[in-house]
Amino acid sequence: MIVEMRVGATQEQLDAVIERAGQYGFDVQLNVGTDKFVVAILGSDTGRCPTENFAVLPGVQSVTRIMRPFKLASHEFRQEPTVVRAGPVEVGGDNLAIIAGPCSIESREQLLETAEAVVSEGACMLRGGAFKPRTSPFSFQGMGMEGVDLLCEARAKFGVPVVSEVTDAHYVDRMAEHLDVLQIGARNMQNYVLLRAAGETGKPCILKRGLSATVTEWLQAADYLLAAGTGGVILCERGIRTFETSTRFTLDVAAIGVVKRESHLPVIVDPSHAAGHYELVPTLALAAVAAGADGLMIEVHPHPEDALSDGLQSLTPRSFAQLMAQIESVAHAIGRGVQRPSGQ
Amino acid sequence: MIVEMRVGATQEQLDAVIERAGQYGFDVQLNVGTDKFVVAILGSDTGRCPTENFAVLPGVQSVTRIMRPFKLASHEFRQEPTVVRAGPVEVGGDNLAIIAGPCSIESREQLLETAEAVVSEGACMLRGGAFKPRTSPFSFQGMGMEGVDLLCEARAKFGVPVVSEVTDAHYVDRMAEHLDVLQIGARNMQNYVLLRAAGETGKPCILKRGLSATVTEWLQAADYLLAAGTGGVILCERGIRTFETSTRFTLDVAAIGVVKRESHLPVIVDPSHAAGHYELVPTLALAAVAAGADGLMIEVHPHPEDALSDGLQSLTPRSFAQLMAQIESVAHAIGRGVQRPSGQ
Amino acid sequence: MIVEMRVGATQEQLDAVIERAGQYGFDVQLNVGTDKFVVAILGSDTGRCPTENFAVLPGVQSVTRIMRPFKLASHEFRQEPTVVRAGPVEVGGDNLAIIAGPCSIESREQLLETAEAVVSEGACMLRGGAFKPRTSPFSFQGMGMEGVDLLCEARAKFGVPVVSEVTDAHYVDRMAEHLDVLQIGARNMQNYVLLRAAGETGKPCILKRGLSATVTEWLQAADYLLAAGTGGVILCERGIRTFETSTRFTLDVAAIGVVKRESHLPVIVDPSHAAGHYELVPTLALAAVAAGADGLMIEVHPHPEDALSDGLQSLTPRSFAQLMAQIESVAHAIGRGVQRPSGQ
Amino acid sequence: MIVEMRVGATQEQLDAVIERAGQYGFDVQLNVGTDKFVVAILGSDTGRCPTENFAVLPGVQSVTRIMRPFKLASHEFRQEPTVVRAGPVEVGGDNLAIIAGPCSIESREQLLETAEAVVSEGACMLRGGAFKPRTSPFSFQGMGMEGVDLLCEARAKFGVPVVSEVTDAHYVDRMAEHLDVLQIGARNMQNYVLLRAAGETGKPCILKRGLSATVTEWLQAADYLLAAGTGGVILCERGIRTFETSTRFTLDVAAIGVVKRESHLPVIVDPSHAAGHYELVPTLALAAVAAGADGLMIEVHPHPEDALSDGLQSLTPRSFAQLMAQIESVAHAIGRGVQRPSGQ
Repeated sequence: MIVEMRVGATQEQLDAVIERAGQYGFDVQLNVGTDKFVVAILGSDTGRCPTENFAVLPGVQSVTRIMRPFKLASHEFRQEPTVVRAGPVEVGGDNLAIIAGPCSIESREQLLETAEAVVSEGACMLRGGAFKPRTSPFSFQGMGMEGVDLLCEARAKFGVPVVSEVTDAHYVDRMAEHLDVLQIGARNMQNYVLLRAAGETGKPCILKRGLSATVTEWLQAADYLLAAGTGGVILCERGIRTFETSTRFTLDVAAIGVVKRESHLPVIVDPSHAAGHYELVPTLALAAVAAGADGLMIEVHPHPEDALSDGLQSLTPRSFAQLMAQIESVAHAIGRGVQRPSGQ
Repeated sequence: MIVEMRVGATQEQLDAVIERAGQYGFDVQLNVGTDKFVVAILGSDTGRCPTENFAVLPGVQSVTRIMRPFKLASHEFRQEPTVVRAGPVEVGGDNLAIIAGPCSIESREQLLETAEAVVSEGACMLRGGAFKPRTSPFSFQGMGMEGVDLLCEARAKFGVPVVSEVTDAHYVDRMAEHLDVLQIGARNMQNYVLLRAAGETGKPCILKRGLSATVTEWLQAADYLLAAGTGGVILCERGIRTFETSTRFTLDVAAIGVVKRESHLPVIVDPSHAAGHYELVPTLALAAVAAGADGLMIEVHPHPEDALSDGLQSLTPRSFAQLMAQIESVAHAIGRGVQRPSGQ
Repeated sequence: MIVEMRVGATQEQLDAVIERAGQYGFDVQLNVGTDKFVVAILGSDTGRCPTENFAVLPGVQSVTRIMRPFKLASHEFRQEPTVVRAGPVEVGGDNLAIIAGPCSIESREQLLETAEAVVSEGACMLRGGAFKPRTSPFSFQGMGMEGVDLLCEARAKFGVPVVSEVTDAHYVDRMAEHLDVLQIGARNMQNYVLLRAAGETGKPCILKRGLSATVTEWLQAADYLLAAGTGGVILCERGIRTFETSTRFTLDVAAIGVVKRESHLPVIVDPSHAAGHYELVPTLALAAVAAGADGLMIEVHPHPEDALSDGLQSLTPRSFAQLMAQIESVAHAIGRGVQRPSGQ
Repeated sequence: MIVEMRVGATQEQLDAVIERAGQYGFDVQLNVGTDKFVVAILGSDTGRCPTENFAVLPGVQSVTRIMRPFKLASHEFRQEPTVVRAGPVEVGGDNLAIIAGPCSIESREQLLETAEAVVSEGACMLRGGAFKPRTSPFSFQGMGMEGVDLLCEARAKFGVPVVSEVTDAHYVDRMAEHLDVLQIGARNMQNYVLLRAAGETGKPCILKRGLSATVTEWLQAADYLLAAGTGGVILCERGIRTFETSTRFTLDVAAIGVVKRESHLPVIVDPSHAAGHYELVPTLALAAVAAGADGLMIEVHPHPEDALSDGLQSLTPRSFAQLMAQIESVAHAIGRGVQRPSGQ
């Protein structure tokens, strides 16, 4: 950490900064500038210390962090890329994992029809929402545990692992018994009670980026899962909120590269929520693959016009099939492949 | 809702739109433009119907909402302003409610010292964080239920109602037994499990605006509390996330006016989190009062330089006293007053 | 346009809306809802009429636009995609145009060395900044017309068209005499004096998207160029300003798809400014190609560590060569190719 | 500047950083951390040196600026607040300057009627747009120099200085001959050609903040005016672009405090453009006064429903009169007053 003193700061104020550094066990190096003092606070653990512990002292103008404030998710903690495993599926290796399924599970027929379609087209994991966080209390809220049971039935039938979003810390254990992967939604990225509960199950987790979370905050949220003992964190970029309204969110495709540079964790992309409209989903999916994403999570519905949620951004099985061919082609162009569903 | 068909949409596609409107019990009026068809979907309840239920149909170019998507929080649901009561305190009436206290409760001494100071300077409600949602799992996480007990002790001693943040749905009932008002933090504004649990206690709730929530989404979140039976919703603007980094968040002072126009609910402002630095807190506090806020929530710490969280944005009791005088002066200038703590 | 009246609006207020529509020559259709009146304003030219002309009338709650506010750039004005030609180069056809060169022209040696490198690696157009808009008045401001002359020398030597940014309306004619394509920078996207002057030269123009411009405003700016008689508009996405600071700007890769849906104009991407760091340039470049961009504009410098501007985001000739191979590979994966420089 | 080396950076890479610092005449101090090297670059002039000059060197992880990148606008350059004078009006002193008038000058009658109304209600300066930068080329573009002549007529009649926006560097001299103050619009905040031309006239300038400009960039733009010899810079906050759409822009009321902390320049607020709707203008105007703005710039139109631009955000003379009384009241509450128009 670098502490910049104000012009005219007193020796006493400077001493208080140095003393505080000593309290935390940090070393200090003093730079005497022409106009002002600058103090470097040194130590391998300064990343854990909030900058404001120094910024609040009298005479301090600014404090700048050098060490990243995340730890377990960082490249400094682990050099080589982590591959997260869920049954036969690997996320973070050479071959991309394509996860697909409906936004909400609406019925046994709807789920099985979708599952059959997406697995036959090459999706290696099935997604489906059982508990749905909805903006309005008057919207469909999901089938709950009944939906989770249907996911298990689909897994038995089609041989692919299943993932669903957890929204309530006190359902997490029951859901972890059934599901292969737990998903933390964007609006819950900083619901630390939920993160801890999900991490403690030991299951792998997909951690969606919050609507207005920086990459740094996202990796700090991953630290919560990792500190609690998760079976692996898969980051999922799904678009951030900006001033642009022609898409539902703005896909931050560069975040893939930033995550690869800062962290050992795999990162996938959800093009459906970012686009908000089925016509734009292929554009974003292919961009994500070319940018180096380790997988995709795509919403597919057999009859989008009758979907109870997010129909507008869902692909039909037919569009999904076309997109899978393009995904494979772009993946090969950058020297990667696409995982096939096990048993196919 | 207004459904705009694409140029060249077929009669069959148009009929499908009309048929769907009929399924929801809505009326339809057809506008035949020079280039395209536009269909008005009419009914008192169209606000509850997601626009995408129509946008997903073939041949549809866009769907525009006319009715607001929130209901119980809207001026259309209730014309006159709501005054929320917590013990002797009223939020939303002529006189402003100033809520103050430390970010985190750190010890009995710290809380009682702060409480005494803020009440003697005119704060009519005491705040203090017991469960702290922190960006990093390695930061101080609060004193938990022990902190809640300390708040109760301070209430008994100084005669003011107390408020603290709830972060876990399964602590909500216990906290509601002790506290006068429950606070929903910005990062949990769309944690619907928590909203429902908090609403069901029947206690008044302070609902902080999410970092990237629109006013509309904020009022939809209020609908969750209201639908669950809350004892009253107090909205709290605390800054939104923008590209500007010279403050921690950007206080959206216009949101006060927008809320007053759209909703019957009272709205207060937290200048401390928006500013992120004690020097800017008075600027934002006074701006909020002049803009018509029904109250303020201000962080005060007897020794900010030793605070375990958010010390940088905390006022000392002395600065708080100076600010209270200015607040009173600006409130009078716009024809309002400031509530005194009961028994003072 | 759809005009929604407030609940309780009077017949007189409604009549005023209808009368105003008549003044503009628009048709009107009235929807009598259960709670309120909604008026549809119809006509092929409503896109040109600002919504506030109605919003300002008493009793009006909101006005919603149906027609796009841009005209000449719209798909409704021209159905088939426009291919913009600059010498032998085509932007908007099957094959991508890769434009490369230094951020600033710094010397004859630097420009010619870069030009030779990028053309030999397959760039079909040379870029180079002669007049530099810099955030600080104390930074290097470019070589001016001397730089333009050097571009012409490079063109003669390597046989590729040249493009440079215009910043001053009164230099536009002189620059248009020498250059093949004029570039409008992001900070000047709404400098309408400059847009008109550039358009009137009849030269093709690259129009960079403003830092905080919506796609709609970008296409309205294109309307200025088109209305003034430009030889063709090439849109260039270069990242928008958001809260995320891990990249210089946030590349809005979805904008490529939105532009293709709304407009007939070709769109290219500048990955260098969006990334702000050379390590992330390939990630963004490949994402853009996969998303359907018609070309790329990439900053290359033979010695980035000595560049007078934007060295951090410049590729070396060697990195550029590696990236060109990947670009070609991804382009082929989506059924497109890359244009070769003429004479190569 | 603080240069952080990567873990594992070589001595050679470190030496290159030190050598470069020496080339610029800066001093260097080396911090040997447990994991990595950190180099402090010291000197009174490091603010002028772009961070990327070091960031681009091999082995460098990040570079952090300590000195502000603006100079002439900074508090370090000038300690005491600057008062800008335009005829009898002072901006930046104890008493607020209220500038009012129509968005666009539309006719002699409209301007004189508005001028009479706003001056009689206490506006001490008259504004009116003669050259209008409009989003669409098909909108009204202003009366041009004829509008400037009308402003002069109004000045002669009502005895107040006049201000109008300059949009074209080559009209600046002619406009400076007639006007008391030149206005640089938000969309031209980084039109450096225009800034230089306006500064060279020696006239005072109102510099509006760009839609997506940070406070730092705004002050850098002020440096352009100051370096060119302007007669004084009055900063004008007018709302920034965010995700929130319930207002036209988001007024960044905290920017007033940030500017006061960082700069000696006076700052006023334009509540009209930020609000975008007349109903919200008083909310923002009073918030700005309470926050310490040195003045306001308010759009007033005698018949907003017939305005050729921005009628929706214009106050009627009657609403303006009511607002002036409130402004005066809030100004007194914080110990300031409001300037009266001279001769009144």
